[in-house]
Amino acid sequence: MQAHALVLDDVKADSVRLPFDREEYAQRLQRTRQAMDARGIDLLIVTDPSNMNWLTGYDGWSFYTHQCLLVSLDQDPIWFGREMDGNGARRTVYMSDDHIVGYPDIYVQAVDLHPMDYLCAELIAARPAWQGRIGVEMDNYYFSAAAYAALQRNLPQTAWVDATGLVNWQRAIKSPREIEYMRVAARIVERMHAHIFDIIQPGMRKNYLAAQIYMAGLEGADGFGGDYPAIVPMVPTGKDATAPHLTWTDDPIPSDSVTFFEIAGCYKRYHCPQSRTVYLGRPPEDLLRAERVVVDGIAAALDKARPGNTCEDVAHAFLNVLNRGGFNKASRCGYSIGASYPPDWGERTMSFRAGDRSVLMPGMTFHFMPALWEKDWGLEITEAILITSDGAEPLCRTPRKLFVKD
Amino acid sequence: MQAHALVLDDVKADSVRLPFDREEYAQRLQRTRQAMDARGIDLLIVTDPSNMNWLTGYDGWSFYTHQCLLVSLDQDPIWFGREMDGNGARRTVYMSDDHIVGYPDIYVQAVDLHPMDYLCAELIAARPAWQGRIGVEMDNYYFSAAAYAALQRNLPQTAWVDATGLVNWQRAIKSPREIEYMRVAARIVERMHAHIFDIIQPGMRKNYLAAQIYMAGLEGADGFGGDYPAIVPMVPTGKDATAPHLTWTDDPIPSDSVTFFEIAGCYKRYHCPQSRTVYLGRPPEDLLRAERVVVDGIAAALDKARPGNTCEDVAHAFLNVLNRGGFNKASRCGYSIGASYPPDWGERTMSFRAGDRSVLMPGMTFHFMPALWEKDWGLEITEAILITSDGAEPLCRTPRKLFVKD
Repeated sequence: MQAHALVLDDVKADSVRLPFDREEYAQRLQRTRQAMDARGIDLLIVTDPSNMNWLTGYDGWSFYTHQCLLVSLDQDPIWFGREMDGNGARRTVYMSDDHIVGYPDIYVQAVDLHPMDYLCAELIAARPAWQGRIGVEMDNYYFSAAAYAALQRNLPQTAWVDATGLVNWQRAIKSPREIEYMRVAARIVERMHAHIFDIIQPGMRKNYLAAQIYMAGLEGADGFGGDYPAIVPMVPTGKDATAPHLTWTDDPIPSDSVTFFEIAGCYKRYHCPQSRTVYLGRPPEDLLRAERVVVDGIAAALDKARPGNTCEDVAHAFLNVLNRGGFNKASRCGYSIGASYPPDWGERTMSFRAGDRSVLMPGMTFHFMPALWEKDWGLEITEAILITSDGAEPLCRTPRKLFVKD
Repeated sequence: MQAHALVLDDVKADSVRLPFDREEYAQRLQRTRQAMDARGIDLLIVTDPSNMNWLTGYDGWSFYTHQCLLVSLDQDPIWFGREMDGNGARRTVYMSDDHIVGYPDIYVQAVDLHPMDYLCAELIAARPAWQGRIGVEMDNYYFSAAAYAALQRNLPQTAWVDATGLVNWQRAIKSPREIEYMRVAARIVERMHAHIFDIIQPGMRKNYLAAQIYMAGLEGADGFGGDYPAIVPMVPTGKDATAPHLTWTDDPIPSDSVTFFEIAGCYKRYHCPQSRTVYLGRPPEDLLRAERVVVDGIAAALDKARPGNTCEDVAHAFLNVLNRGGFNKASRCGYSIGASYPPDWGERTMSFRAGDRSVLMPGMTFHFMPALWEKDWGLEITEAILITSDGAEPLCRTPRKLFVKD
């Protein structure tokens, strides 16, 4: 496929320190182009910030205004975003400056103008070869209904292809360097959990504990500084722990209470999520029973998490143990992970649940997430795993149990 | 307008501690219904998490899966989201439990199913009165092109109304309690800046500084614990400070360098953003000149930020001083603020820029944001302000200057 031959610019300011070498970006682009070609896509408009980062190195908190990459078959990706953020692109992407295009600020959060109007007029209108079939990430946080409507209005002849997940799927198997970064993130989240257990005590206010979690997470580990996770710490106690996604208040933690900590270490946007649960006092029998069942279920599931098995095999292995132990879980028990931006540290491709027949392969990474949210408490004991040729390797060494501080 | 008579349920578990009293939520709903009525909207689908919070109290990091409020003219809002997050809704909203509807987990990040299919089938299909004209927030992060396509597919007879900003505009004038919360956030961000200046020194790693910023922000002030800001700290140094939205690395801060800190205090989701810039060493003359011009420009702008004037009046007052001083700025110099969730702490209604003729009124709150991103450095000295009957009241007492540590 000659069209997919790599075209990368050689000249780039030395000041840009890419987290991966140019060859790795070239391979990523090539895989993406192959997937485009298989779907007959002439131009792919990439709006998912994690896909933008993975393809080009772009890293900035600019996704609150419209931005995207234009990925074509014939030239380097073009970064498109708010004019002021072009400076951030120049600091972080491998492409040459003529592949960085900003739109005027008057398009920002405006009523009658949309950045996609400008994109079409300035970058797409003059290129008929790009206009036949354009792929868009239909179900992405950062591709709004209005953005799509603007594209359709400007390019009435174009056939639109739903390319949700197209790039995300190319990211499923991690490179050695990506795995290195995730191992750094694993050291960070181990340290976060250890720090929580060190300091937690009845009467400590939740916001203080959240502050300490950030402190440990951003200080990092082994000399590597932490990046911000794509989700803030979930630290609910007691009844609040019956819900998965409450953040924190400034209430003190009572004694004889259970709190779960759903947190992640993050390094160069690569995440290692891991949850643990802490009981202050003597845990009730039903919680201890749940702990035993969940820990057994994790062992059964990880045993199935090996190349050739499917995502649903892993879910079934866990749910069999869970159901035999007298508990139920209606939600998925895991998902693929990697580089990400708010609001989600998942990769939004594979899920450990019935019906997901994606086949596991070495180099894939997941958050195995068998959380229980029961009537009066929640229990989260989870593992980030790497699929190796031998099976599932947990990335963290945090003890796999209910933490008890009496 | 009889249809707008307030219908609020009286019974709600005591365990829900709403940040505002029921009367305030009732007024918010009434204002929203009036705006709906003015546009002929029968049903409003609210996907902006800050609008969901403002209308009902809902607070959780669940916006990474599809969720919304259904606001009709004839009954309390209905919270719709992932089944597991229904527990979080039951912990945080004022509506009774029969106004909390969850969708099965199999709809999460699925290929062939969309949560909006379930919404239409379960909640809208049986109610013809809701189906005539439905308002949707077309340009919101959390209303994807796919969500809109699913709605259109399921309700082919419905007329769709772009209601982007409809609820946001009702939020423009803050209540006394909202202003109280923003004043708490102001105390928090003052403390954050003071802490930065206390500890910053050459050789300190940026990730450590970011950790300290979180620490100060979440510990809070005056006994009030801090919430997470909707944007992570921007802390770029030197050349990186020529870009507005780079986050941090684990590099040490060099001496003779400039770093700006774009941060916010946050309390119960209400934000007080404020930026300051720190020079380590003796600042170059062009930076000092910019400081003088910007500080003078702020004074001129705030003098114009009074009831009856427009947003563009404020921008022009600043830009006149700026341009006379030899600097230019192509981007807006401020925006309305209040309650928010990632990825933006702005309210996405008014902007201080040419062409925005929104009239200032007492109770409105803004981030006046006259940042400069020049060729070799960036300078951010900004103020959160409250419009009072007398003019603009800065919410913070942080000294308005370039901070220098030599």
